[in-house]
Formats: sequence, C-alpha cells, structure tokens
Amino acid sequence: MVTDALFGERLEAAVERCGSPVVVGIDPHLHLFPAPLRHLASSLNRDVAAAAVQRLCDEILEAVGDVVGVIKPQVAFFERLGPPGWAALERLVRRARNEGLLVIADAKRGDIGSTAEAYADYFLGAGDGLPGLDVDALTLSPYLGPESLEPFARHLARGKGFFLLAKTSNPGSERLQELRVEGPWGNAPVYMRVAALAAELGSRIETGGGRSPVGIVVGAAAACQARALREAFPSLPFLVPGYGAQKATAEDVVAAFDLDGRGAVVNASRSILFAYRHERYRDLGEGRWAEASRRECCAMRDAILAALQKKGAPARGSAT
Amino acid sequence: MVTDALFGERLEAAVERCGSPVVVGIDPHLHLFPAPLRHLASSLNRDVAAAAVQRLCDEILEAVGDVVGVIKPQVAFFERLGPPGWAALERLVRRARNEGLLVIADAKRGDIGSTAEAYADYFLGAGDGLPGLDVDALTLSPYLGPESLEPFARHLARGKGFFLLAKTSNPGSERLQELRVEGPWGNAPVYMRVAALAAELGSRIETGGGRSPVGIVVGAAAACQARALREAFPSLPFLVPGYGAQKATAEDVVAAFDLDGRGAVVNASRSILFAYRHERYRDLGEGRWAEASRRECCAMRDAILAALQKKGAPARGSAT
Repeated sequence: MVTDALFGERLEAAVERCGSPVVVGIDPHLHLFPAPLRHLASSLNRDVAAAAVQRLCDEILEAVGDVVGVIKPQVAFFERLGPPGWAALERLVRRARNEGLLVIADAKRGDIGSTAEAYADYFLGAGDGLPGLDVDALTLSPYLGPESLEPFARHLARGKGFFLLAKTSNPGSERLQELRVEGPWGNAPVYMRVAALAAELGSRIETGGGRSPVGIVVGAAAACQARALREAFPSLPFLVPGYGAQKATAEDVVAAFDLDGRGAVVNASRSILFAYRHERYRDLGEGRWAEASRRECCAMRDAILAALQKKGAPARGSAT
Repeated sequence: MVTDALFGERLEAAVERCGSPVVVGIDPHLHLFPAPLRHLASSLNRDVAAAAVQRLCDEILEAVGDVVGVIKPQVAFFERLGPPGWAALERLVRRARNEGLLVIADAKRGDIGSTAEAYADYFLGAGDGLPGLDVDALTLSPYLGPESLEPFARHLARGKGFFLLAKTSNPGSERLQELRVEGPWGNAPVYMRVAALAAELGSRIETGGGRSPVGIVVGAAAACQARALREAFPSLPFLVPGYGAQKATAEDVVAAFDLDGRGAVVNASRSILFAYRHERYRDLGEGRWAEASRRECCAMRDAILAALQKKGAPARGSAT
C-alpha cells in the first residue's frame, strides 16, 4: 500500500467524500439471505454457501459503493465457512479497496508476541512478501495489554489503523468494562483505561493535530459512556456499532461525535444488509434486495446527519 | 461427537492416560522450520507454505501422539496463510482427534450475539450440519462479558469446553488484568473477577463434584497469581502457557496445580515443536527434528512431575 496519509485522516476523508458517517457491516448470516441467493446459502456444502456469500458481497458493494465510504466485514461469518469463507472475505476486501472504500475487519483479535505479529501481518499486510488480507484497520481486544497491540501499532505509519474494544452495549459488558478503578480521572471505569491506552498508542505518531490513527469501539446504545469518552479523548476516532438491528437510534449515537459532527463512524449490519426484510422496503421485492440496502444506507445517513444538526453541528453536504 | 463425559473429566482422563500434564502447542513459525521443510516453508506461495505446515503437523503428531494427551494449535499461525492455512488446521484437528488426542484451539475469540454463535459453531461444531473445526475446547477473551460466552457455554453439555483468559504473564498484562476493584474478595484484581465468571459458567453444569468444564488461562510465569487463583477456585482447570520459550520453569508452574498434582495442563510451543534448535538435541541433526520434539516432551513431563512431587504431590506413573 502506498499512502502518505495516516489512518485517522483517511477515515475522515472517506466520510467527507461520500458525505456519510455510515459504515456498512458485512455480516452474512446465511439464514437471512434474500430469495435469489437463499438456495445457495442454505447448502451444507461450504463451497456452495461461500459462493452465496461472495455473490451477496459483490452485489452489496455494487449497490452501496457510492453512498458510503467504509465497510466492516465481520470475520466470524466468513470464518464459519472455513477455507472457502476466507477466500470470499479476501475477495471482498480486494474488491472494496479497489473501489476506493476503506475496510475495517471486525476481528476482535488479541494475543501477544509472535502470535500478535502473525495476526498483524495477515490482517494489515506485511513486508514479508506473503499475501494477507490487507485491510485498512481492524478491531482488537485490549485484555492482554500493550504488548498485544505493539505489532499492530508498527503498521500505523503505513496508514493502517485499529480500534480497541472499549465499551460495548450488551448488558453484560458491565461485568468487566464498568468495573471502577482508581486512576488519573479519579474512580474511573475500566473502559476509560482502555481509551487511555488507545490514546497513548496513537500519540506516538505525529498527526499534526489531526485525528489519531488508533480508535475505540463504543456501542451505539452506550450514549452516556460515549459522552464521557468523547470529552476525555477528543482526538480518538470512535467506531460505533449496534445501530439499527441492535435498537440504537440516531439520537443515541450523536454523543460519539465532536461538536462539529465529526470523529465517529456508525456501523449497521443486518438493518442494511438485509433491509429487504423490513416492511418499508417490501414493495421492492426480494429480487431488488440490494436496492433496499442502498436506500437504508441513505436513510440512516440522513437520520444521523439530522440528529447531529439538531445538536448544533454544522450542516454537511450529502453525496446523493 | 458422541460422548458422555464433560470436558473437565475428559481433560483429566487425557492427562492420566499418558501420565503427562504437557500440552504441545502447535505454533508453526515458518522461519523456524527444520531443514527438511525449510525450503517449502519459506515459499511466498501460500499453498506451498501451507503444505510445509501440514507436513510439520503430521510429523509432530506421529512423534508425540503417545506421550502427550493434548495439543493446542495457535490459530494465528494458520490464519496467517489464509484459506490453505485453515485447510491445514482443519486437517490437523481431524487427525489429532482421530488418534484420541484432545485439541484446544488457541483462538482467543470474543464477540457477542450472533457473531459469538458463528465462532462457537465453527470451533465447537454445530447442529446445523455445516462442517466446522470441531475442536474439544478453545481459549476465549472475557472482555465483552457473559453474553460473549453463552453461545460457547451451550456446548458444554456435549463434552466441549473453553478457557477464559484470566492472567497472562506478559509484563503489560497488568494494565487491565491487575487493576484492583472492590468485590466479594475485598479489593481484588480484575483477573479474579474473570475467574469468578468462569466458575459461574461452569457451575451451571452438574459435574458430580468433578472438574469444571470451563477453565482459565494463567501464564506460567505468574506463579503468585496462580496460587491465589488456585486457592479461590479449586475446581477450575488451568491452562498454563509460557513454559520453555517464555522462560518459565517447572517450579513456576507448580502453583497452578492442586495439592494432589492435578487440575492443570502446561503448554510449551516453540521449545517442543522446534526443540531441534536446542544445543542438547543437536546430535540428532535436523532430519530427526521430530525425535527432538518427542524427547523434549518427555523431559518437560519429567521436570514438572518431579517439581510436583517435591511439593508433596503423590507420585504418578509416566507412560514411557
């Protein structure tokens, strides 16, 4: 990859270019595939099911490629299909990046030493000449501490990035993430420590005052925690999953953004990818499922931009 | 899989059968391969490199299959090679289990909802008919909390198991794992909370007083923490990585065991798999690298059993 820009800037540019902070999550749940692909997707032969996944990915890229700037494939659904699933993921990443989209692999990997290096080399692309997935960024679990992140941090200067899981919106996330510990901000929750670690790793790279190349994951429904995090860490990019299918609304995610409406990208997976199942797109028929996805991307963008303006952010142009 | 026994019992039985608590970590670092496989391993063609990995795996199984009961492939090294790497991993798991070995996938996955289900279905084998890796157990990251573990817990009754990352021995692990929070044990570190979560999940399954099917990962060099954890959680199985290449000794790992010398398995990866590189096996030559691995397995077993006896555990027979 030849690039002069750091990941934080590249992410901002991708959002600006299409006028949308929406990230399309590619979570190919086989049992939700639309009619034209359903037969293939229900096969117990992994090659056949992976072919369905590949077609779904090709068609979604075609449909949304000009209205969003970022996609986030969820690695688990590809991994579920073994080798042919990984081949489908590699193809998706290649095609998306060729079309100018940023790709964030939702992998939540986390390990130490040479193992972390192997993950970093595969996901972010290495200098060793062996082909890898070569995405722009990935999600990482912070539990093993700084050493588990170092091999990924080495790729920051190449324009790559990563997002540390800080605060997720599942109720049980409180079991670890909300434990309160003494720290520089007084008695603060663990997720605040994770954000501090992200900020520390990102600050090693000179960004010229721009957005850090290391971000955090903050669940869409965790508006209260997002507000506290945004206040403490103004330059971190936030990846906000859980919009749509996980019930969070445009009003919930506003807290993750800056006052000027920047600094966060919001992911929706099922509600976009399988939008055809929603009542309001029923008239399109399952044959035009990808058109439903495109419309849902635009509707989500409009809802978020409207919520941001309502909170006082400057108006932004939209691409369509 | 047809089995009546729960994972905790199966793990104990595997250790008893071969008289060794040693787990062979399969971490195929391509640049450490012995001479007979080095040419293939250094290929930049992933199919060729994966063929080297496959041969390494076949030969190590052949060499150590009767002196150990458990292997732990490190998923990252297979993942590094993309689809052909995953095919090599699937083959290794199939062959090892056919030979009666238990397989623990070191995957450190952790996600929520349907994503966690996809990981669980792939790693532990599902009822949906799609083939998966189908290992006996895997390692999981606890950061997302109980919901991220539920999809795996559903497989416990089928004889499957998992190990939660509790305390790792890298210095930076203190950043999260050692944070102290108020809890039922007074002011206790986060890793103690993770162990409590493991115990809670395991206790839902009736074991008849036997070993829990849910375990924890405790780094070999963290002897002090292992002692505290063993005292607080007597029925949890401990998976202890970091022996050998990561400098921990037999004396260090004793703390993870019960007073009667049970309850833990100890993993070594590079020091066994690439034992041929050690001075004391030099006379075998690289052509007999697998014999060096076998001897190192036995030496490690003998060292651990001796250290356990020194601490008062009853003597146990060894298989060779």
